[in-house]
Amino acid sequence: MYDLIIIGGGSAGVTAGIYASRKKINTLVIAKDFFGQISKTGQVDNWPGDMAISGMNLALKLEKHLKSFPVEIKVGQKVVAVKKWQDNFLAQTEDNKEFETKTIIIATGRNAKTLGIEGEQDFVGKGLSYCSICDAPFFKNKQVGVIGGGNAGFETALDLVKYASKVFIFESSDKILADEVLIEKVKSTGKVEICLQAEILRIEGQGKVEAVVYKDMALNKEVRLVVDGVFVQIGSVPATGFLGKLVDFNEKNEIEVDSATLETSVKGIFAAGDCNNTKWKQAIIAASQGAITALSAYEFLQSPAQGGVGRNGVPPV
Amino acid sequence: MYDLIIIGGGSAGVTAGIYASRKKINTLVIAKDFFGQISKTGQVDNWPGDMAISGMNLALKLEKHLKSFPVEIKVGQKVVAVKKWQDNFLAQTEDNKEFETKTIIIATGRNAKTLGIEGEQDFVGKGLSYCSICDAPFFKNKQVGVIGGGNAGFETALDLVKYASKVFIFESSDKILADEVLIEKVKSTGKVEICLQAEILRIEGQGKVEAVVYKDMALNKEVRLVVDGVFVQIGSVPATGFLGKLVDFNEKNEIEVDSATLETSVKGIFAAGDCNNTKWKQAIIAASQGAITALSAYEFLQSPAQGGVGRNGVPPV
Repeated sequence: MYDLIIIGGGSAGVTAGIYASRKKINTLVIAKDFFGQISKTGQVDNWPGDMAISGMNLALKLEKHLKSFPVEIKVGQKVVAVKKWQDNFLAQTEDNKEFETKTIIIATGRNAKTLGIEGEQDFVGKGLSYCSICDAPFFKNKQVGVIGGGNAGFETALDLVKYASKVFIFESSDKILADEVLIEKVKSTGKVEICLQAEILRIEGQGKVEAVVYKDMALNKEVRLVVDGVFVQIGSVPATGFLGKLVDFNEKNEIEVDSATLETSVKGIFAAGDCNNTKWKQAIIAASQGAITALSAYEFLQSPAQGGVGRNGVPPV
Repeated sequence: MYDLIIIGGGSAGVTAGIYASRKKINTLVIAKDFFGQISKTGQVDNWPGDMAISGMNLALKLEKHLKSFPVEIKVGQKVVAVKKWQDNFLAQTEDNKEFETKTIIIATGRNAKTLGIEGEQDFVGKGLSYCSICDAPFFKNKQVGVIGGGNAGFETALDLVKYASKVFIFESSDKILADEVLIEKVKSTGKVEICLQAEILRIEGQGKVEAVVYKDMALNKEVRLVVDGVFVQIGSVPATGFLGKLVDFNEKNEIEVDSATLETSVKGIFAAGDCNNTKWKQAIIAASQGAITALSAYEFLQSPAQGGVGRNGVPPV
């Protein structure tokens, strides 16, 4: 039996773990890894205090910091279900183990949105990627497609031109959605072609990506473009499916939280970082929410209704 | 004329400046210095990613990061008044200069209430602290005094007993002012002694805290008590006096903000960090609020009513 289980190893989960450990809450952190979204960013310029740090190095610093505290960590495991269990909760992991806890902090972040088209899942890791930081170097002197014409797609194109000989950006609407400054940078490389009104139909190839097939909606014809790789950048979705209907969600499947305490619709369950309905998704905001949820959980554990825990492990009178 | 003036150079003000600069908002930061409350903490263990950094070094890193951006900074000046001016605002500095701006972020933090006694200022960071969350872990197996017998003092004692071998709480009145539940919790630890009618006279030591000297008013005699640390918990006050009645405050003189956008009761004025009514006062939370207020100000400036600024400097259509 734990007093707190933190699910997730990104900047929110790590900071929650640090704060919980300092408050001496009997805590278990369950994380599939410590590579949150920040680790997939090439260079981070807006984590205050660390100028121009690579996202991966920031993630490694956070992991090391958490591990410097005597907090129990179960890594390499995903939580597949959470349910109420008497007055407490049970978190179930992939390997079918169950962990009982009085409070939970959900800090599972977000996953890249998939296209949901033919060939997509077969090609993951075989030329199809959702992360240019991770995979751009594999496309040296290759021709690559980026699906998505927003900021993320344009940033991905900028990562790719360092290696690729040619980059195509496919956007289904009739205009570019990225910021002006990004558009200018992309254009100045001279290596990027932007295809508007391009509806992606399928990815083709024998064992690896060989072509993107899309419909040019302006010309109303199907086009097959030869590429060695495809980067999908059409947004992200909160990683909250494992919760079922346990807590309330907004229309984007983000967990609804009280904006002051970050408590969900279920007492004793809190949500920090990009999986909740906070407006801006930023690493520093997620970290702050990790701290807030740990302090909220601590306060919850102190309440007389939670007798037997109390502050500092001393039962409240 | 600026689009944004940020008042304050602590973790909230600095992070607001970083975010504003990255958004290319025409910004002026006015800070009396870059030594926010964090710089007054001996060692910071809970700024995620930086293990065991001194508060001063963290403050210096933040300052350096801000200055790496092309943001205009006026340092060594306090803002003494802010007023409405037509559709904008005027911020007036000590040297009687006025700066016009469309939006303001107030990030002036708090000042700890001080005892105002002999030795106090000399021992700050040398055994004397105003923050148990920050510094309790440094007093493992030590004997520590807490000055102040209200809730803050009792909570500080509870933070301390996790580490310290013995804690004395000094209260000048003849009764404990803390909540009953806190009193009982403190008593149940068996490690805390409460000294009522104790008027603190001075702190003594060679280069670091070694003793508290107080007058036992019941016995009318002077007592010298050997301690390794002193935590002053007689309250802190938000540094918000210069605002007069411009925005709404709560009963503690904290600026009331919308907990999602951090906008004050006046449109275009935002408040980040310890000067506002957010429950927990932590550097990482203040930094996050700096980011949020900069993004909120950016959004405000983009609105059609603020025509001429817009996203990326392009006027909104």
